[in-house]
Amino acid sequence: MDNLSLKEQTERAKEAGFHLASASCELRNKALRNIALNLNSSRTAIFEENRRDLKEAEENDLKKVLYNRLRFDEKKMNSLIEGINDLIALEDPVGKCLQKTELDSGLILTKVTTPIGLIGVIFESRPDAFVQIAALCLKSGNSVILKGGSEAKNTLRILYDVINKALIETHNVFKDTLQLVETREDVKELLKLDYLIDLMIPRGSNQLVRYIKENTRIPVLGHADGICHVYVDKEADLNMALEITVDAKCQYPAVCNAVETLLVHQDIADIFLPGLNEKMTDVELRGDERTQKLISVHEATEEDWHTEYNDLILSIKIVDSLTEAVRHINRYGSHHTDAIVTENEDSARRFLQEVDSSSVMWNCSTRLADGFRYGLGAEVGISTNKIHARGPVGLEGLTIYKYKLTGKGHTAAEYASGEKTFTHRKLS
Amino acid sequence: MDNLSLKEQTERAKEAGFHLASASCELRNKALRNIALNLNSSRTAIFEENRRDLKEAEENDLKKVLYNRLRFDEKKMNSLIEGINDLIALEDPVGKCLQKTELDSGLILTKVTTPIGLIGVIFESRPDAFVQIAALCLKSGNSVILKGGSEAKNTLRILYDVINKALIETHNVFKDTLQLVETREDVKELLKLDYLIDLMIPRGSNQLVRYIKENTRIPVLGHADGICHVYVDKEADLNMALEITVDAKCQYPAVCNAVETLLVHQDIADIFLPGLNEKMTDVELRGDERTQKLISVHEATEEDWHTEYNDLILSIKIVDSLTEAVRHINRYGSHHTDAIVTENEDSARRFLQEVDSSSVMWNCSTRLADGFRYGLGAEVGISTNKIHARGPVGLEGLTIYKYKLTGKGHTAAEYASGEKTFTHRKLS
Repeated sequence: MDNLSLKEQTERAKEAGFHLASASCELRNKALRNIALNLNSSRTAIFEENRRDLKEAEENDLKKVLYNRLRFDEKKMNSLIEGINDLIALEDPVGKCLQKTELDSGLILTKVTTPIGLIGVIFESRPDAFVQIAALCLKSGNSVILKGGSEAKNTLRILYDVINKALIETHNVFKDTLQLVETREDVKELLKLDYLIDLMIPRGSNQLVRYIKENTRIPVLGHADGICHVYVDKEADLNMALEITVDAKCQYPAVCNAVETLLVHQDIADIFLPGLNEKMTDVELRGDERTQKLISVHEATEEDWHTEYNDLILSIKIVDSLTEAVRHINRYGSHHTDAIVTENEDSARRFLQEVDSSSVMWNCSTRLADGFRYGLGAEVGISTNKIHARGPVGLEGLTIYKYKLTGKGHTAAEYASGEKTFTHRKLS
Repeated sequence: MDNLSLKEQTERAKEAGFHLASASCELRNKALRNIALNLNSSRTAIFEENRRDLKEAEENDLKKVLYNRLRFDEKKMNSLIEGINDLIALEDPVGKCLQKTELDSGLILTKVTTPIGLIGVIFESRPDAFVQIAALCLKSGNSVILKGGSEAKNTLRILYDVINKALIETHNVFKDTLQLVETREDVKELLKLDYLIDLMIPRGSNQLVRYIKENTRIPVLGHADGICHVYVDKEADLNMALEITVDAKCQYPAVCNAVETLLVHQDIADIFLPGLNEKMTDVELRGDERTQKLISVHEATEEDWHTEYNDLILSIKIVDSLTEAVRHINRYGSHHTDAIVTENEDSARRFLQEVDSSSVMWNCSTRLADGFRYGLGAEVGISTNKIHARGPVGLEGLTIYKYKLTGKGHTAAEYASGEKTFTHRKLS
């Protein structure tokens, strides 16, 4: 990092990105292979630095959940290296021809995928995320500037050195493509460099994502909230509905695709809810007025419909109809992931069509919304944006396209005068 | 507009968008047909309102170029109606299956295009742009809130009434999908409604686009600058280079895809530039030091390389190599449209690969970068964004996708435990 200013670091990464964009997939894969090898042979040194961070964390009484994320052990290392090998095997996301058109004789337009450019990534704790994201950006030909949590600083420094060494040894084109920044002040500065950074990806708490979104003009990929719903229709298989609800709430309650609010059709509420209440003994249930008449639960207020608990708490509302369920979800949800349980195909189709969320599901658990599970190979994150990339985002979300037009001296005047006309013939 | 507050108007448009997203293409096309019919039969009334605006503009000494844009005549009306009919003929951009994967037996994932939601559009002068944009949003299933120039207020009001009447008469689903706002204060308010508006499209001057980008958290589609280059390589056909340069500068200098800076390889500069100087008598040429030694031109300063003239002015720089040309373009350009003239295919491929612009061209004029010319059917605008949509943007840029997952009670726990595994089989 050579004591460069943050702006210089970012400028270097930007410039490096222009060259990286032309590196062949073979070369990018070779760099990934070398990173995996270097990580493997540097285990001892990496774990040692990680223990320094863990020791400091203990002294600072870091929260247990953060402490666990900070720990970098054999298991995490193995899964990281496996992930990099999977990434190598994935199809090149860059240079794909999306469209080819003959505009006129000798005038050929192609639309080709390209890297986005320079990606800014800000993440909390997990040092393994640093490696994952660096690898994803490399595979997709993007340079990247990363800021991790200060509690992981020793681990991140050695990981940066190990990865950067592998990059530079592979080829000079990778020089400067990976940059690490360390301080909170750097983040503030980074967010101002909208003329250099093309896309910002925050990975961490809702607070972090919201802070980034509110403090930069750089486009931000991600989601702040994950307020997901399961709607149990009047024609639901109630056993299935119970299993899906339990899975969606309890299998891993701390994550964004866990369910927060259960909507139940009034016609089956009196049969379904007592069973749910019996089964979900570990979960704090909060219900609207009608729910409270059927089972003994805490009161759910307006605020509950807006809340992502990330915990074993579930709010319940009885609705009159599918229409009311859809309206509730579109109004209070975070447009992340929402599911209907029903045996009626028409109702399911309506739900999937009308609910405005990145993932909409029929008869399965919201917890299935995930890049790996969706078969995208690797996941950058889950986006609730309405532009660019939505839902679980894989390598494709790290690419854009350019139009390449090749002619034989073609000018606009010839077409404006009517001398020539366009053919617009699609080529395979 | 019923004296609603701007926030209420926007909320209505947002809600209406949810319903519009489910309207069939047949119904959307029917509404477009009715709009075309209504416009046709309301010509007299529309032209009358337009004359009121024109009269006021004369009294206010509106600039000639703006006055011309404001004028709404038979010719513009005919081309508008023709444009709507072309739009009806275009393939439905919504509901396209982009990908279908079997995640496991009975668990099917589809990725389907959807409208974005609520689009905010701010444009200057041209009342015909109002109709065009409303039609594009309607075809792509988006609701839209529009603000036009105050100098066109009477024309816009009647156009709004004519179009809205056609919408409501077609079907109740189109109620509230089109909203018009009128004042500058409204724009300020609009830019704050990032939780309602999904995408902002400014159409107008660089100043307008820059203002919008700097004052909102809503994603903005468009470009502020169009600093385009033509690079004449040492292996260029110099006659072709001359014709392309003249076309790119002179055919319509006020537009974003006109060339602003000419880069000339040093090996052919002494042959090429005198010919150019002779031919471009209408154009003010500004050159770097080396250019000034070859032809009599004004001095080009650092500022010139950053300047979009939008006028008959051309800056010229002599470069040592293709590499220097690419570096200049990536540094000073606006990543809009840049062209190389050369007979050497390798040099051309390098240029197309390495120049980081939305359109890169070989042996043809930058003026060809345009949605209609590219065969996109209709153009929303040209984007220099690095995410979502880049270059000339058609209907596709007004869509995003959602993932639909249908199962038979599938839960995440079954896969986490290893009881089941994913198949990830691509379906056609």
